[in-house]
Formats: sequence, C-alpha cells, structure tokens
Amino acid sequence: MKGYIEELRKILSEEQVTVNETLLEQHSHDESYHTPHLPDMVIYPRDTAEVSAVMRYANEHEIPVIPFGLGSSLEGHVVPVKGGISLDLSLMNQILEIRENDFLVKVQPGVTRTQLNKELKKYGLFFSVDPGADATLGGMAATNASGTTSVKYGIMRDQVRDLEVVLANGEVIHSGSLATKSSSGIHLNGLFVGSEGTLGVFTELTLKVYGIPEVTMAGRASFPTVEQAVSAVNGIMLAGIPIARIELVDAESIKKVNQFMDKSYDVQPTLFLEFHGNFAGLEQDVKFAKEIVSDFGCGDIQFETDSKARNALWEARHNLAYAFIHSAPGKKLMVTDVSVPLHELSNAILDTRKKVDQSKVEGAIVGHVGDGNYHVLFMIDLKKPEEVKEAKRLNEEIVEYALTKGGTCTGEHGVGLGKSKYQRREHGAAYEVMKTIKQALDPKGIMNPGKIFTD
Amino acid sequence: MKGYIEELRKILSEEQVTVNETLLEQHSHDESYHTPHLPDMVIYPRDTAEVSAVMRYANEHEIPVIPFGLGSSLEGHVVPVKGGISLDLSLMNQILEIRENDFLVKVQPGVTRTQLNKELKKYGLFFSVDPGADATLGGMAATNASGTTSVKYGIMRDQVRDLEVVLANGEVIHSGSLATKSSSGIHLNGLFVGSEGTLGVFTELTLKVYGIPEVTMAGRASFPTVEQAVSAVNGIMLAGIPIARIELVDAESIKKVNQFMDKSYDVQPTLFLEFHGNFAGLEQDVKFAKEIVSDFGCGDIQFETDSKARNALWEARHNLAYAFIHSAPGKKLMVTDVSVPLHELSNAILDTRKKVDQSKVEGAIVGHVGDGNYHVLFMIDLKKPEEVKEAKRLNEEIVEYALTKGGTCTGEHGVGLGKSKYQRREHGAAYEVMKTIKQALDPKGIMNPGKIFTD
Repeated sequence: MKGYIEELRKILSEEQVTVNETLLEQHSHDESYHTPHLPDMVIYPRDTAEVSAVMRYANEHEIPVIPFGLGSSLEGHVVPVKGGISLDLSLMNQILEIRENDFLVKVQPGVTRTQLNKELKKYGLFFSVDPGADATLGGMAATNASGTTSVKYGIMRDQVRDLEVVLANGEVIHSGSLATKSSSGIHLNGLFVGSEGTLGVFTELTLKVYGIPEVTMAGRASFPTVEQAVSAVNGIMLAGIPIARIELVDAESIKKVNQFMDKSYDVQPTLFLEFHGNFAGLEQDVKFAKEIVSDFGCGDIQFETDSKARNALWEARHNLAYAFIHSAPGKKLMVTDVSVPLHELSNAILDTRKKVDQSKVEGAIVGHVGDGNYHVLFMIDLKKPEEVKEAKRLNEEIVEYALTKGGTCTGEHGVGLGKSKYQRREHGAAYEVMKTIKQALDPKGIMNPGKIFTD
Repeated sequence: MKGYIEELRKILSEEQVTVNETLLEQHSHDESYHTPHLPDMVIYPRDTAEVSAVMRYANEHEIPVIPFGLGSSLEGHVVPVKGGISLDLSLMNQILEIRENDFLVKVQPGVTRTQLNKELKKYGLFFSVDPGADATLGGMAATNASGTTSVKYGIMRDQVRDLEVVLANGEVIHSGSLATKSSSGIHLNGLFVGSEGTLGVFTELTLKVYGIPEVTMAGRASFPTVEQAVSAVNGIMLAGIPIARIELVDAESIKKVNQFMDKSYDVQPTLFLEFHGNFAGLEQDVKFAKEIVSDFGCGDIQFETDSKARNALWEARHNLAYAFIHSAPGKKLMVTDVSVPLHELSNAILDTRKKVDQSKVEGAIVGHVGDGNYHVLFMIDLKKPEEVKEAKRLNEEIVEYALTKGGTCTGEHGVGLGKSKYQRREHGAAYEVMKTIKQALDPKGIMNPGKIFTD
C-alpha cells in the first residue's frame, strides 16, 4: 500500500493523501454500532478531475474506495471493511448555483443540508429533506435519506434532477438534466441515488427546492395507546389532509426526554404534526385533524403557528436521540428501521412493542408514521454479548415481520453492513439483477466493497 | 419463423399465437407518423407464466419481442422494426387488488387508466396520471407517461411501488415492495419505468393512488401574448400556490378548436388551471391566482367548482388533438415534446413560435407548462417529402434548443424511434452506462430492438 500512497500523493498533493492516525480512526466508523475498520489512507479531493484521477488509479490497482461525507450514516455505510481509500469529500463544499426561478440548486457533495438551507432562506426557498443529522447532501443522495418531511415532499430520490457521477473507472457522467421531468433514456438518477457508494462517487448534485410555505402550523397530540395514535394517523391520511410531517414518539421515548430535559410531557404515545399551506386552508385542515384525533381518544392537543412556539412543541421529538444516548452512558445506539404498507403500521408497531417488552433490552419506538416507516432504538453495551445478541434477534424479528407484510428491511437508513443479509430475502430474483448491474458498472468491485452486496 | 410459430402455439395455445393479417397490421404501428412495420406474429398471453414461457423461447431463438398495450404511444415505441413477436397484453386486464387503506392498487398491465379510475371512484380514490389517451397502465409505466396532473401528483415513475417484470431470459422479478418508501438495495422501479420494453415485460403493477380532493376548482384565463401567459405560470409557481394542473393552449390551437366545435373562444393564448384542496384553502389560492394572472395582462378569467361547469371550461383543451386531426384530413399528426427548466420556458416557447411562423408548415403549441414541458403539433402530409422534411427540421431545432438550455429531448412521450438519435447528444457518456445496463439485462438484444438504443 505504501507505494500506492506515494504515487497518489504525486497525482494529487502531499497533504491531500493522509495516513494520520486520528484521521484514519475518524474514517473507520459512522454513528452506528457496527465494528470500525481503518482505511489505508484518507484522500481529500478538491474537484471532479481529482476524484476521477483517484478512481482511475484505484481501479487500475484494485484498491477499494469508500466515499465519505460526514460519517452520520447508521448502518456502517462508510466503514472501510476491506481497507483502501476513504474518499473524504469535505473540501468539495461549495453551493455552485441557485436557480431560484427554476426551483433548482447545484451543489458539491460536501455541502450540508443546513448550510444549503441557510443560503436558500435568502431567496424564500428551502430544501425539504430532513433526516435529523446535518448530513452532507452527497451522503444523503448516496443513502437515499428521507425523514420527517417526506410524507409531503418526498424522499431524497425525488429531489435529484441530476448527479455528476465519477464511475469506478474514472469516467464522469451526468445522470439527468435540469428539466422538471424527462422520459429520455434509461433513468439513471434513481439508480444512483441510494447506491451507497457502490456504483460511483457523486461530485455534483442538482436538487429541487421549494418555496417556503406561507404558514406553518405545528401540533402535539397524546393518546392513551399506540394503537389509537396510529389509527389517528390513518384517519388523517384517509381524510386527505395534506400533512407535512406526522411523527410518532412512544411513551418510553417521552419518558427519556422528560429525564434528559427535566420536562413533564405526558408519558403517553404522542404524535407530532405539521401542516404547510395558506392560512385559510390550514385553519380548515387543523380543525378537521383535531376532530379526527379526538375521535381516536386524544385528550390533549396543542397547535402553534409562531415559529418559536412551534419549535418548543417539537422539542421533545428533536431531542430524542440525545435523550437516549445520555440515558445510557457507555452504551451504543442500535437503531433499526423498517417500513410497511400504511394500513399494516398499527399492527406492526404493536407487535414490535410486545417483542421489545418481552425481551431483556430496553427499546423505544419512533416513526415517520405517514410513510409507514418506524425505528426502534436500543441502547446496548457492546461489551455484553448477550445484550448485543438480544438486540440483534429483535432487529431480525422486526425486519422479518415487515417483509412478511410486503414491507422493506429499511425505510430510510439504507443497507450498509447492517441490512445486507436481508437483501436476498427481500428482493428475491431481483437481487441478482442488482448484482448484474453492480458487476457491469464496477467489474473489479472496488466501489465500497462489502456493502449492500455480500453474497 | 413458421417453425417458431408452430412451437409457440404448442407452448401456449393455437388461438393465442396469431398471424391474422388484420391483427398483424394493427400491431405494426402506434398513433404516430412513424413508418409501420409488421410483426411476424401477435401473441396474447393470459398470465405471467405464459409471458415467461414466451420470453424463454424467444431468448433461446433470438426472436425480437415488443410488448404491446393499446398502441397509443407517440414515438413509434411499439413498431416491430425488426419483426418478431408483438406481445399483446390486452388479455391481462384485471384489477387484482384495491388496498384502499394503503392507497395502493395492484393491476395487470392491460388495465386502462379509465377502467381503474371507474373502480377507484367507489372507494373515494383516484389514479392521478392522465396522459390524455386512455392508455394501458403497463404501457404508461413502460413509457413513463405523465400529462396534465404531474405538476401536483408527479409522473408515472412516482406512482410505481412495485413491478412484476419478466426479463429477457424469462425470469420473473419484483422491482420494489408495498412499502411507502424504501432504501433497500438498488432502485429498480425507477430503472424499469420508462425503459420502453427494452429491459423486460411488465406483468403486474402496484401503484399509488390518492383520495379524491374535497374540492376541485377549474379556471380558464386568456392573455394577449404567449409571453404573458407563461410569465403568469411562473408567477403562480413562485407564489407557491399548489396548482394541480396548469396547461397552455396557444392561439393557433384555440382557432382549430373553435372551427372543430363551432365555438367562439377568444383566439388568444389561454391557460387552463385546476386546483385541488379544501374549500377555504382553494378560495384563498384562487383569489391569489386571479391577482397574479391579471398582473400579467389576463383580461378574462373564469372559475368553476361544479363538475359539469368545470368540464365545459376544459372542453377546448380536451378536444385539441381531435380538432387538429379533423382540420387536416389525410394528414398525420407529428407531435414533438420537449421540457426545459421552468424559467427557460417563456423564451423556449417564443423561440419555437418564431421558428414555426417562419416555416412552411402549420404548427400549434400546447404545454404542461408547470413542468416546463411543451408540445408542438404539426399536421403533415406523409406523401409530401418537403412537408415531412420541414417538420423534421423544426423538430430537430426545437430539441436542440431545449438541450442547449439544460432540458431534455422528451418530457413525456419517450424515446421510441423518434428521439433515439438524440440520446447520445443528450446523455453524453451516461449513454454508454445505459447501454451497459441494457447489454447486461438483455445480452441477446431481443427486447424491443431498435428503440432508445440505436447506435
């Protein structure tokens, strides 16, 4: 590897190719419980030409390349399980163009979503996808991130108009165009989004943005049971109320938030709701939503329009992950993430709750319930094999239940290392098609090896 | 070919494999101007197993297979340019399942969109994509159809949750799941939608459906100039009014409609608008939209809520194609279809209008202007080479303009025969990636040969 490093330093520059131990360690893991593994080097390209040069060299010498954004993924996506190059795109962090009248922005992959939103605000625009973490947009496209707003605005894949992609062999392509819609050629945008670095490196993204809505109303509603909360979600969806966010936080999670923040929120399954639109329309929507939630036993619902009051309402939801991490010092967060058809959600969550209650580990359920997508958070002590084993067993049973109901093993966190073993089970014969495409585009298997495709 | 026909008749049945001349002729063309070509036979499979058996046989013997819905495509997609099997899916026309609480339907490919909507109405639901023609849903997925409602609900690709696909070698895969969203594996749904029969045959589709909105308001607004009409569209989009349809019909087209229907609509560029939502919200939206259009010189705007009055308002738009066809007996309709970034639309349409006015053929412009997508309709006499040549020249110039502005050579009609020559120009190096995928999934090149990929 030493010879490679020296040659790569000549192709780029001395300081762009590093073997500094702290940096190697920083690129050995993401935010998940998955076992870290050091890369052989970290490379910081400054532009597309440099990414292309690295890829050409790596392909020739069959060196693994793992594109790296901020490392906020949750299934081990950026762990260099076979060593090689961690390709850190943080120097490519420019917002290249804001085409406000086209509702488009062109950015480099290292731009984060809050960096973009701060700039867009000046134009009365916003970028919709909000996965929680302040991830890079390149990373969000690579994992097909989504989050709280997807029920209205769609997932990351829905926002991508064009990607500049450097392929395994160093070739540079554009996967789309600036047109709002297109029926030209085979759809490559969708293929590359969510490919988790296994098909190419994104060096430029053209993304759809939206006008900031005239009015935003937020609400918090607590229910006696999870079942009633989820039924209320179904009721709201069936009534055709165009909700912008609808999040479930279960009682266990509210308890943790109360401890962490010294609050006294009702320890009950709680829905966090948000509506975007014009004032008259929202008034009618919110009135209707209030009727629906009280039909499903909601005793307490509060709504706010003012941005400060709205943020206070959402505080419990926003602080959830931190509350969990703080509640169990020394433990690691394991989150599983499944999605089921909407009408299956209530039973799925009840089934999960029962399984967790009967197990030896603590777990809390939160969900982007308008998408049929929910997470179970476990805090586990990686040094206690029985705890790890128990959490893994639950993870498997939750995934199996989702697949049995026609759902998916991951709604938004992606495959990475953690969900690769379910790929054949979920996709059946289609898994071979995915492998065929991978093989055709990366014949030497250098792009993020060991992810998605493991058998 | 005779031996093949006999063997295929043994695999299926005598009457499912036909060489009847009328049927061969019926499967030799679509609704476009492209030169027809007879298939060697038409096969009518009844289920997935039969499609698979046909594909296995065809692959073994390298016989071209062209999936056929209703033949309503507009770029020669179903023309069997290399003969072979026209695979007519009209016997597979069952609505298999309506999962109303999941907002999903499962259908066979031969179901038409009006057939589906008639059934969905009973559940208070509707399927959103409306390309005009009463196409089959299989065909609409194959061409990634869109149309008037895409500005709000998205294109065909956005509605597809899962496809059962029979591959070139007869293998059957599912491209997705029933989950609302998924980050599992490589995204095959998007890849197969719009592949125009070049990657596989769709034998089952799971599609997203929507609740019928509480209120629909429709409007018609005429403007002194096309420029003002398109600027009004930009104004409405920038104001963030969530419009459900926004269509432009130019003065030339209104003239044809007046002749055809004996009406006296103002012979001016006209916008047809539709809003879906709740009553209070729409009242506010429509009031705002009225202010915007009058700012852009609209003298006359009418709005209706009642369904009969709404239909009367939209009459001119709906009858446009017929008006054109009737205006030129013996001529064939040539439609071109490009899409540009939203803000480029006004200049693109002005440029097109100028080119058409300076040419020797008559042409009218209509557009799904909220998507930056517009069509130019030419009625041409295929027996007059100079007329054909002139229309083709205009087509090329219009496409070239769109590509120069970062747009696409086809917003919704697809590639087929007519737009294949622009693929390399539009996609550059990405075209090779598309070809690599095609080659990997259909190594013998039997799936709808001569479409999309021609060089």
